[in-house]
Amino acid sequence: MASVATASLDQRFGLDRRVSLAGPFALASGQSLARLDIGYETYGSLAPDGGNAILVCHALTGDQYVASDHPLTGKPGWWTRLVGPGRPIDPERHFIICSNVLGGCMGTTGPSSIDPATGDRYAMRFPVITIRDMVNAQAALLDHLGVGVLQAVVGGSMGGMQALDWAVAHPARVRSVVGIATAARHSAQNIAFHEVGRQAIMADPMWRAGDYAPDAPPAAGLAVARMAAHITYLSEEGLTAKFGRRLQDRAGLGFSFDAEFQVESYLRHQGLSFTQRFDANSYLYITRALDYFDLAAAHDGQLARAFAGSRARFALVSFTSDWLYPTSQARRLVRALNAAGAAVSFCELESPFGHDAFLLEAPEMNRVVDGFLRAGA
Amino acid sequence: MASVATASLDQRFGLDRRVSLAGPFALASGQSLARLDIGYETYGSLAPDGGNAILVCHALTGDQYVASDHPLTGKPGWWTRLVGPGRPIDPERHFIICSNVLGGCMGTTGPSSIDPATGDRYAMRFPVITIRDMVNAQAALLDHLGVGVLQAVVGGSMGGMQALDWAVAHPARVRSVVGIATAARHSAQNIAFHEVGRQAIMADPMWRAGDYAPDAPPAAGLAVARMAAHITYLSEEGLTAKFGRRLQDRAGLGFSFDAEFQVESYLRHQGLSFTQRFDANSYLYITRALDYFDLAAAHDGQLARAFAGSRARFALVSFTSDWLYPTSQARRLVRALNAAGAAVSFCELESPFGHDAFLLEAPEMNRVVDGFLRAGA
Repeated sequence: MASVATASLDQRFGLDRRVSLAGPFALASGQSLARLDIGYETYGSLAPDGGNAILVCHALTGDQYVASDHPLTGKPGWWTRLVGPGRPIDPERHFIICSNVLGGCMGTTGPSSIDPATGDRYAMRFPVITIRDMVNAQAALLDHLGVGVLQAVVGGSMGGMQALDWAVAHPARVRSVVGIATAARHSAQNIAFHEVGRQAIMADPMWRAGDYAPDAPPAAGLAVARMAAHITYLSEEGLTAKFGRRLQDRAGLGFSFDAEFQVESYLRHQGLSFTQRFDANSYLYITRALDYFDLAAAHDGQLARAFAGSRARFALVSFTSDWLYPTSQARRLVRALNAAGAAVSFCELESPFGHDAFLLEAPEMNRVVDGFLRAGA
Repeated sequence: MASVATASLDQRFGLDRRVSLAGPFALASGQSLARLDIGYETYGSLAPDGGNAILVCHALTGDQYVASDHPLTGKPGWWTRLVGPGRPIDPERHFIICSNVLGGCMGTTGPSSIDPATGDRYAMRFPVITIRDMVNAQAALLDHLGVGVLQAVVGGSMGGMQALDWAVAHPARVRSVVGIATAARHSAQNIAFHEVGRQAIMADPMWRAGDYAPDAPPAAGLAVARMAAHITYLSEEGLTAKFGRRLQDRAGLGFSFDAEFQVESYLRHQGLSFTQRFDANSYLYITRALDYFDLAAAHDGQLARAFAGSRARFALVSFTSDWLYPTSQARRLVRALNAAGAAVSFCELESPFGHDAFLLEAPEMNRVVDGFLRAGA
């Protein structure tokens, strides 16, 4: 998508950017980072009045390559269905920013970064981070880019949590929020699945308490973590439709431990390919940040009070077969936003594809996002 | 529960029995076992007319200690709520048999057994087995015990699959079948979760392609497998009620990778304690047998035809919050049994406890089983 890159000569803008911001960068834990590197991309141009900036936030295993090819896998951007020319988030009309989250492994400071204090990788000496820390890192990036107020902050899954937290943490800088397939907190079941993944990584002897060499990562443990998580991204209905009990390249049962069923082969591929683009320690830190997420926690469990200072408009979208962040979670948000007096539109969309639906072709989702963004422009 | 053990001097009957049956024992794969050892227990006495025999079948990680203390953990039998004096399955009235499944690790031949042909453990040289093979092993045990026709075969989860398969494989030997929280086949999602567990075990370097020493098992991998599976045994609702986002022994977030949330601590405990009583290779083989289970497969997908030869009565029970073997699976069985002209009663019980509900105190379940067994006695 190089064609939609800004023509600006300003090196802050464009594809595959890096910036190193001087610290200290304070974290929710009380610790701080001496320096904050951020990997990001921008698409389109900032309007003279600065009013067309849209921040897109990525999910657990996403990155800044929302609408351009991934440098490691060569695959198209992860949300080209929503972001791109003629799409609801359009570089012809919007100035689009997407950055790798704090704790990530695609250019933003995380456990695989070098600790300037020691010259070694942080590994597990990296401080535990939160969704709020990710949001504050994005705010620092906006300062660097000269973006004051966002027309919108948009995200799905963990990206939606960041979008919601933007309205809580920086209410004066957000005019509208789009949260898709997301929730105001991580449930016990969500935490449980993450804990399985973390234990799988930590059980891998290659993990070495986090101090693995970059070319000798705990790939087996990370693959198992990804496989377990991947099941939660799909629905039982979708898995049955896609694979059922169909066998892989066989006429009958092989009485073996090979990947005999198609669903086994698919999962193994998902696990393996993930390890080629993601850092195991980043997976530990980002899942931990997700588990910590609970917007109401600082307000005695009263979610509405979290949004008391916000004047943003909200659009929430859920999918019928999403059991990771089900519609009940979205409704909880809608009730709280209503109680807080916020303008909120909510739409539950039919889909058989589970949580993954937000990344797939979803014309109704596009219409909802497009209409919401145009109404607030 | 030694008090309810039969007073018979016949060494075939009683607690903690072992028998070694001469082979060859033919398997569904076409392979055979030279010898078949079975670990089992019996409770009560066989009536003179032999008409009071009830076979209880255990689930994936169960064993023959249905109503007596477990020799390794010291915990009470796993189904004392249903089996015992004054319970629906009562040693005062019934002759109760429960055996460790083929492939298990509590006395029945499995991958941890010695292969008589080599003098070494089978490990991964053990043939891949099926639910049908488990059922046929039980039939061989009944021959040894002098039991012809079963008044009932009763099981939950994988035990229910064996109970159903008894009516298909040995229709002349089964008068009634009780299947609780079970299904006629493993779904794609069921297979996917098992595959995660198997990959976790196989990724553990201690696994050594199955040839681990008994005192150096792949415990870390097996613990992760158990954790992933355990989530599927509980409901989101149950997890939320039991743990929510409550912290473990802490006033606030610790910003660490310790088990900060109660649900993490619980899962880690479940994983760890499981490794002290279960063999990793058995876990591989038994999950494989479950994945292979599909009663309709031999009948061109027509489930009703599987039951064409059966004259048994059936009772099926499902639980509202069970998402491992949900009510929809039980309904599929009911439709097929109706189509086959079988007498079938079906009951969906309210429970917030997910799949695990069948192992918990469930007075309604007890009433259903008691009434059904008495009506057919």
